[in-house]
Amino acid sequence: MEEQNKIIATMRDLKKKDKLLEAAGDVYGKTLMLLPLDVCSDESVKQCINNVKDRHIDILINNAGVGLLGPLESISIEEMKRVFETNFFGVVRMIKEVMPDMKKRRSGHIVVMSSVMGLQGVVFNDVYTASKFAMEGFCESMAVQLMKFNIRLSMIEPGPVHTEFETKMMEDVAKMEYPGVDADTVRYFKDVYLPSSTDIFEAMGQTPEDIAKCTKKVIESNSPRFRNLTNSLYTPIVALKYADETGGLSVNTFYNLLFNFGPLMHITMSILKCLTCSCLRRRTVSPN
Amino acid sequence: MEEQNKIIATMRDLKKKDKLLEAAGDVYGKTLMLLPLDVCSDESVKQCINNVKDRHIDILINNAGVGLLGPLESISIEEMKRVFETNFFGVVRMIKEVMPDMKKRRSGHIVVMSSVMGLQGVVFNDVYTASKFAMEGFCESMAVQLMKFNIRLSMIEPGPVHTEFETKMMEDVAKMEYPGVDADTVRYFKDVYLPSSTDIFEAMGQTPEDIAKCTKKVIESNSPRFRNLTNSLYTPIVALKYADETGGLSVNTFYNLLFNFGPLMHITMSILKCLTCSCLRRRTVSPN
Repeated sequence: MEEQNKIIATMRDLKKKDKLLEAAGDVYGKTLMLLPLDVCSDESVKQCINNVKDRHIDILINNAGVGLLGPLESISIEEMKRVFETNFFGVVRMIKEVMPDMKKRRSGHIVVMSSVMGLQGVVFNDVYTASKFAMEGFCESMAVQLMKFNIRLSMIEPGPVHTEFETKMMEDVAKMEYPGVDADTVRYFKDVYLPSSTDIFEAMGQTPEDIAKCTKKVIESNSPRFRNLTNSLYTPIVALKYADETGGLSVNTFYNLLFNFGPLMHITMSILKCLTCSCLRRRTVSPN
Repeated sequence: MEEQNKIIATMRDLKKKDKLLEAAGDVYGKTLMLLPLDVCSDESVKQCINNVKDRHIDILINNAGVGLLGPLESISIEEMKRVFETNFFGVVRMIKEVMPDMKKRRSGHIVVMSSVMGLQGVVFNDVYTASKFAMEGFCESMAVQLMKFNIRLSMIEPGPVHTEFETKMMEDVAKMEYPGVDADTVRYFKDVYLPSSTDIFEAMGQTPEDIAKCTKKVIESNSPRFRNLTNSLYTPIVALKYADETGGLSVNTFYNLLFNFGPLMHITMSILKCLTCSCLRRRTVSPN
């Protein structure tokens, strides 16, 4: 990259910038700028882009996202809309704001942080999945038009990622009561889904750094792919869906994995964890 | 079906019931009931289901939907939200309302009218596509859980369907001015996309009766499929996506079809129209 290139990091509340500045070190104020941005606000999005010199953005990376996990009966329509506000409409707002300038310049690259859950539904993640699917469909449609203007569009689809956000969400839901939900559903959620999910996180989880590296590769590529699964361990899950247009193969496999082969899955995930060295890695890292 | 089975048709405004009653004839008041329902209102959804005897619904068919077509620059976030309100949250409201009773009874069948645009994005249909993708993702996630309660979930994915709604929308957008949109984008939309779309409708379009027949088959099946494409001519388009996980094959093919092989596509669609007999059919039908 040329020296005059600037990276603009954004956050809703600049009071929380200390951790970022610490990680950035010397580059802050030189190649790294910081701007406030709330993707849920039309006004904030417009203001943020207006604060960029000539409104010129070469690469837009849409990373803001929120999670939602739990039995559908316990989630209000209002809560669902909040998820869509950030995960879907937030990205649409940003694209609407930068796309006309990119079209004029006949260049640009838009990167969208999607999820494997944008490609395959996961039980008890119904609304989060829906918001990420929406993004995938929107971008599939936009990509064809943008190509005509020499603007590239790339989706990044991480699997599970170890973040404070994930850990806190899992702990929170495990403690929650679900008064309006029938006992069986709560049991399937807490005693079947959550332990499986924890297993999968431990066996397959990536770090935020893994995702950042993958994103860097995508934006530096001369011919970036439209879809970019960051976790090769997830490829078979998507392949399952693509192998059977009736959808039966995926639904039945997930059903069996979760409800019939729970113990088997636990063992498989434990073996996988060792094979992919995450337990070895932990042992090696801990003493330091 | 047993004689005591009742079909409950719903519409937002019962003043518009005349056409339906005319088509229904004798069965209205016997096996067919009519209830007001606005899927965009929590209150209306609750009231409608409360008006059903014992709130007992064996089969829920979600058919309400709205379209949205045009350059993204010309569509406000508010307009997008209206599409999601009906196409996504409308279905979610209905499922939330009937699912707990179905779970208790350990039986039921939920049918969702999706679209091929729930499986593959289409240029200038960005927001409609997103709303249907959202539905597909949501239902993929729900299907696994519902199976545990012996509740079946089926998606129906029509391609283009000849309805007044479609015809009117196409006519409206062709006449519209797009003041905020750059000239190239408007030209691609009006002079490239719309003619192609008309060709595809004429060559591949189905009737609402075709979709009704397919829906009947799905609800009468002992083991209904999760996904049900009504139009076999669309299968290759979905296959294209499933054949290449990078997404490049689909995006490039749609790009070439639209922008590079426009005339070729026009000829192909004309041939297809004849092969599938729709021009023959029209000639035969017209004299009557």
